[in-house]
Amino acid sequence: MTLETTLAPVRDTSHALRETRLYDRYRDALEVPIAWNETLDTIVSHRSVRAYLPDAVPDGTVELLVAAAQSAASSSNLQPWSVIAVEDPARKARLAALAGNQKQILQAPLFLLWIVDHERLHEVGDRVGTPARALHFLESFLLGAVDTSLAAQNAVVALEAIGLGSCYIGGIRNKPAEVAAELGLPPHAFALFGLTVGHPDPVAPASVKPRLPQEAVLFRERYGAQRSAEPIAAYDVRLRSFQREQGMIERDWSEQASQRVRGADSLAGRDVLRQVLNGLGFRLD
Amino acid sequence: MTLETTLAPVRDTSHALRETRLYDRYRDALEVPIAWNETLDTIVSHRSVRAYLPDAVPDGTVELLVAAAQSAASSSNLQPWSVIAVEDPARKARLAALAGNQKQILQAPLFLLWIVDHERLHEVGDRVGTPARALHFLESFLLGAVDTSLAAQNAVVALEAIGLGSCYIGGIRNKPAEVAAELGLPPHAFALFGLTVGHPDPVAPASVKPRLPQEAVLFRERYGAQRSAEPIAAYDVRLRSFQREQGMIERDWSEQASQRVRGADSLAGRDVLRQVLNGLGFRLD
Repeated sequence: MTLETTLAPVRDTSHALRETRLYDRYRDALEVPIAWNETLDTIVSHRSVRAYLPDAVPDGTVELLVAAAQSAASSSNLQPWSVIAVEDPARKARLAALAGNQKQILQAPLFLLWIVDHERLHEVGDRVGTPARALHFLESFLLGAVDTSLAAQNAVVALEAIGLGSCYIGGIRNKPAEVAAELGLPPHAFALFGLTVGHPDPVAPASVKPRLPQEAVLFRERYGAQRSAEPIAAYDVRLRSFQREQGMIERDWSEQASQRVRGADSLAGRDVLRQVLNGLGFRLD
Repeated sequence: MTLETTLAPVRDTSHALRETRLYDRYRDALEVPIAWNETLDTIVSHRSVRAYLPDAVPDGTVELLVAAAQSAASSSNLQPWSVIAVEDPARKARLAALAGNQKQILQAPLFLLWIVDHERLHEVGDRVGTPARALHFLESFLLGAVDTSLAAQNAVVALEAIGLGSCYIGGIRNKPAEVAAELGLPPHAFALFGLTVGHPDPVAPASVKPRLPQEAVLFRERYGAQRSAEPIAAYDVRLRSFQREQGMIERDWSEQASQRVRGADSLAGRDVLRQVLNGLGFRLD
């Protein structure tokens, strides 16, 4: 039942399309008796794009994505983030080298760096004579990371709505101090992740990755016991069918995920993040 | 130039609509030469809804929002989050009391709790014989918070696309241990924020909140000096015009934001978040 899907926003709002999209996401049927629309279709058919055409993004793309990002909720309207739009190939290459040499950073015409930015609030506080001492707490760093993420995700939905593709780059946290130097960040600013943006290469189309069954992540009223391995075993099988179709090495999610979080050696240098953040001016009290 | 806006998704893709939406977001003109569409319109007209009708959400809403959430990117496909859908009025009332008594939690028919969930990964690791030791690092907690936020924001766009409204509830972090007990959370699980969901009350419509000018948050190639107070002074004026229209007390953003982050006493108990997280099983090494 895996049907061909397209990257461009689709205006067909039929039930059949809804069922196809949900099936692609779970490799299993999911009943959702709600009329489908273009926005839902854009969201549910998301895929991370790692191959781009060399074409520049349309004029106004950066401004549109920032407007989408700023339209996300912000806790107490603090707006504790900034974004840096990098298009210079030499700078992209240096950032790619710092982020584990992911080729999509070189290929994508636009690389957005999403910055947890407490410096603006420190400056505003100093200006009005109320030093921003609460920013020293872990809570404030966390609030900054949450708001930055909500903002970036709005940008992702917006860029897909105009036919572009993207890929989050968490590898930018492998060497945060070097990234901060490359971007000229002030103290109290931290590049949380990158986002490559461009026109998806139709020759190497990305696919919708299946996710865990809803039974594994959704609870009613209270958290349920997860000791049942059943939904995860079902997912291992579904992910293998996806890997097989993609010509990837077949490997259970249980195995893959466990290896990814097995210890300090699986964190690509990010095991020292706390100390590095302290060095960037975040006390994390 | 402030025109009347509506909550329901709009299919008018004209330039005039685009300009109205962007003007409402910034209280200033923003040139974006990109064709408007329903998804962009939904995103840019976001507003936080704090007054709801008593009507239940449509059948399938929770499943739809979870499918949207799971469609967001996930770092290394770790999927380190869960969501708990609370509809029981008594439980909502107890959670509201823990979260600073925000009335929208009582009013909204659905309250979603977004959980950074490392417990599932710990269990999977134990099952395959590879203990998930990397989860003890701050990086892993941060990754969980980022992925949970990306997921929740997709749910927000999806719910607005079907005419519902929502409000993030960061106040759920005021008393994380008590919230964990109420929800029956296992160790290695933390309620990052709540989200009220329901039908917006048309008698008390929410408004689009203006945001900082793009000059204050968007940089090209490298972070720019923010020492210029100009864009922020312009914003103070624009936010005051919004407050005046809303019948709110007029107050500069600079003043409001600075007071919100002035010190431990302005954090509603969240200054002890680090210790509480340690108690919930997150070492944050």
